[in-house]
Amino acid sequence: MKIYDIIAKKRDGFKLTKTEIEFVINKYTSNKIPDYQMSALLMAMYLKGLDDQEITDLTLAMAESGDMIDLSEIPGIKVDKHSTGGVGDKTTLIIAPIVAACGVSVAKMSGRGLGYTGGTIDKLESIPGFKTQISQEDFINIVNKIGACVVGQSGILAPADKKIYALRDVTATVESIGLIAASIMSKKIASGCDAILLDVKVGDGAFMKTYDDAVKLANKMVSIGKMVNRNVRAIITDMNQPLGNAIGNSLEVIEAIKTLKNQGPKDLTELCICLASNMIYLAKKQSLADCEKQVRDVLKSGKAFDKFIEIVKAQGGDESYIRDVSKFNKAKFSYNIIAERSGYISNINAQLCGAASMVLGAGRATKEDSIDYASGIILKAKTGDFVKKGDILAVLFTFEQEKINQAQDLVSSAISFLDTKPTKNKLIYNII
Amino acid sequence: MKIYDIIAKKRDGFKLTKTEIEFVINKYTSNKIPDYQMSALLMAMYLKGLDDQEITDLTLAMAESGDMIDLSEIPGIKVDKHSTGGVGDKTTLIIAPIVAACGVSVAKMSGRGLGYTGGTIDKLESIPGFKTQISQEDFINIVNKIGACVVGQSGILAPADKKIYALRDVTATVESIGLIAASIMSKKIASGCDAILLDVKVGDGAFMKTYDDAVKLANKMVSIGKMVNRNVRAIITDMNQPLGNAIGNSLEVIEAIKTLKNQGPKDLTELCICLASNMIYLAKKQSLADCEKQVRDVLKSGKAFDKFIEIVKAQGGDESYIRDVSKFNKAKFSYNIIAERSGYISNINAQLCGAASMVLGAGRATKEDSIDYASGIILKAKTGDFVKKGDILAVLFTFEQEKINQAQDLVSSAISFLDTKPTKNKLIYNII
Repeated sequence: MKIYDIIAKKRDGFKLTKTEIEFVINKYTSNKIPDYQMSALLMAMYLKGLDDQEITDLTLAMAESGDMIDLSEIPGIKVDKHSTGGVGDKTTLIIAPIVAACGVSVAKMSGRGLGYTGGTIDKLESIPGFKTQISQEDFINIVNKIGACVVGQSGILAPADKKIYALRDVTATVESIGLIAASIMSKKIASGCDAILLDVKVGDGAFMKTYDDAVKLANKMVSIGKMVNRNVRAIITDMNQPLGNAIGNSLEVIEAIKTLKNQGPKDLTELCICLASNMIYLAKKQSLADCEKQVRDVLKSGKAFDKFIEIVKAQGGDESYIRDVSKFNKAKFSYNIIAERSGYISNINAQLCGAASMVLGAGRATKEDSIDYASGIILKAKTGDFVKKGDILAVLFTFEQEKINQAQDLVSSAISFLDTKPTKNKLIYNII
Repeated sequence: MKIYDIIAKKRDGFKLTKTEIEFVINKYTSNKIPDYQMSALLMAMYLKGLDDQEITDLTLAMAESGDMIDLSEIPGIKVDKHSTGGVGDKTTLIIAPIVAACGVSVAKMSGRGLGYTGGTIDKLESIPGFKTQISQEDFINIVNKIGACVVGQSGILAPADKKIYALRDVTATVESIGLIAASIMSKKIASGCDAILLDVKVGDGAFMKTYDDAVKLANKMVSIGKMVNRNVRAIITDMNQPLGNAIGNSLEVIEAIKTLKNQGPKDLTELCICLASNMIYLAKKQSLADCEKQVRDVLKSGKAFDKFIEIVKAQGGDESYIRDVSKFNKAKFSYNIIAERSGYISNINAQLCGAASMVLGAGRATKEDSIDYASGIILKAKTGDFVKKGDILAVLFTFEQEKINQAQDLVSSAISFLDTKPTKNKLIYNII
C-alpha cells in the first residue's frame, strides 16, 4: 500500500477502504508519512468529501492511535458530554454534580483551554487544592464512591487527531464537517464512554456560524455514533452571546456554584437542565420529562450543590471556597463599562467578549502561558435587556491595569443597542 | 498576505490574483512557505482548477524565479522546440541542423534524461569530445556564426518549477493540465525564445495517454503563449510505439545521422520534416508548404548533414565519428530477439521498450547514475510490419550480460502480433 495511491484515489473521488484509512493514520502518527503528503490528502478529503463509513473508519483509527480508556469497572452506562466550545460555557461544572446527584455516573476527562478563556480543567484548578491529575485507579474509585470525577486527560488520547488537527489548522482544511466530526468523536471514543451528548453551538461566538452547518455536524456525529455502537444525541444551542454572565475561570466557578444553588442566570440554568436531562435520558432510558423532573428536583433540594461539594472534597479542593465564594482571590483592578445611551441590548458579540477576556488575562495564547484565574468579565445585562444611560453594562477584572483600555474597546464594540425590544434568539434550537 | 488565506481562497474555488500567485512562488522558492502548505494549495489547484490568466501568472512567476536567458544578441526570431517526451525521440539532433541549414537560428538548451534513456545532452555527449557546457557568450557566438548550438542548461532556469514539480511528484498532483502547461512553459520562457513549437506526444509511451488530454494540454500552452506574447504552435504526435528504430544514446545519434543523410526510418523522417517545417514557419512567417520544401531540399542536398558536422566541430566533437559511425564504441554484449511466430506486428509498447533500455544501461534511475552510451535496443520491425517465425525482431545491447534476460522479457512482452494487417496509427494527429 502506498500513500501516493491513496492520495490519488481520494483526489479522483473514490471511497477509501478501512485498511487504507488505518494505513494512513498509523503511518502518519508514527511519522512514516510526511506532512506534505498528509496535507495533500486532507485537502482532497476536504474537497471530495468522506462518506459516513469513511468518517467512522477515520474516527476509530484516530481513537485507536493512542490509549483507550477502560471504564468497565464503573457500573452502568457512562455518558460523556462534549461542547463544540463557546464563550462563558461552564456547563460541565454544573452538569457533572447534577447528573451524579440523579444517580448516573460521570467519569469525565476534560481539557485545558487554548484561546479566550481556560477550559474546564483550568476553571476547576482555580479552586485552591483541587487536583485534576489523578491516577486511573483513583479516578474510577472516586466515580464509584461519589458518582462523579472530572480530571485532565491521563495517558495519550487520540494522538493522531492532535497531529492531524495541527496540520489542518495551517493548511485551510479545518472547516470540513466530516473531519470535524471524526476529530471530536475520536477523542470521545478513546475516553471510554458508552453514550455521548453533544452540545453543538451555533452563532458568531461558535465554530459553526450557521444553523445548517451545526445540524450537518450534529447529524454526522450521530451517524458515526450509530456505526460504532455509541448512543449519541446532539443539542443545537445558541452562541450569539456569551453563556451566562461570567467569563473567566474563577468568575465562572462562582457562577456555576450560584447555578447549582438554583440562583444562576436564566440562560445558563435552562441549558444545564436541558443537557443534564438528556445525559440522564441516555443513561437511564427513562422518559425525557422524567429525567428533567429529577434534574429540577436535585437543583431545588440542594442535592446538586451538595454533590459538587463532595466532588471538590474528593479531588482535594478546599470546600470552604464553595460554601463562601467571597474567599476566592480577586483581581487587582476592576473597571465598569457604562452605557452611553438608553435602549435595548440587541446583541453581545461573543467572539469580541472572548477576545477581551483573553486580553484581561483569562486565557492563554500558547500552551506555556499562565492564566490569571480571577481575570475576566461579568456582564450586567444580556441581549433583550433594557438599560438606561449610565447603567453598568459590564465589569472587567484584571491584574494588569494597562490592559483595560483594549478590553474596554472590545467589550464596548461587542454590545449593540436598539430603540425597540429585539425579538429574542432561542437558546436551544433543536435536539437530534 | 498570508499563505493560509490563499489556500482557503483556491479551496473555495476563487480565482487567485497575479500578486497572490507571485507571493506563493517567491516565498516557496525561498523556503518561506513549507511543503505541507504548498501541497495543500497544489491539491486545491488540481481539484478547483486554474483559469488561463492564473496559469499564465503562474508560468511567468516560475520563469522569473531564476535566471532569464537573454538571446537578444542573436538576430531574428528564436524558435525553441519542446517535446513532452517519448521513447526513441532523437528529433532535436535532426531538427537543429535542418532548421539552421534553412537559415533560422537555433539556440537550444536541452536537458539530461532521468528515466528510460538519456536526454538530448546525454545523446550528444556520446560523440567523443562534444561539449555541452558552454559559456553564454560562446553559446551566442556559435549560434551567430553557424546558426545552431545545443547546450545543457546554463544558470538556474525556473527553480520554482523544479521545486514544485518534485513536490507534485509525491503528492499526486502531477496530472493537472494547467500545472503541466505552466511547468513546461515557464522553462521555455526562461530560456529566452520568441516562439515555441511543442511536440505533444500521445499514447502508451507518453505522459498524455489520450488524444483529448493531449489536445487540452496543447490548447492550454497555446493560450499561455498568446498571453505572454510568444507565438506557440503544438503538434499532437503518436507515441504508441517507439519513434524510429533506435533506443539508447549513441544508437540514437547514429540513427539521427542516417536521417540527416535522408536514409532514416520513415516515421522519424516524417516527424522531423513536420517539426522542422513548423519551426521555420514560426520564424520566417512564410507558407508552411514553402517551409516544408526548404526542409526537404536541405535533407536531399546534404546541407542538413553538413550543418550537423559544423555543429559537432563548433562544440568540440570529433567529426570523424559523424562521417564514419562505425567508429562509435560498441556494447560488449548483443542479443537477438527472434520471432516465435509469423504475423503482423500490431503493437510495440513504448513504455516497456523504455523500461528495457533502462535495464540495459541506457538511462539513469537517479541523477548520480552513469549511462552506458552504447547500450540500448534496435528494433528490426515496427507496427504494421509482417515478420516470419525466426526473423530478428530486435537487438539488445548492453555491457552487463546478466541484464539481458530481464530486458528480453520486457521487449518480448512489448511486441504483439495479429494474423491480419492492422490499421495503421497516424503519426501526426493534429496541429494546433
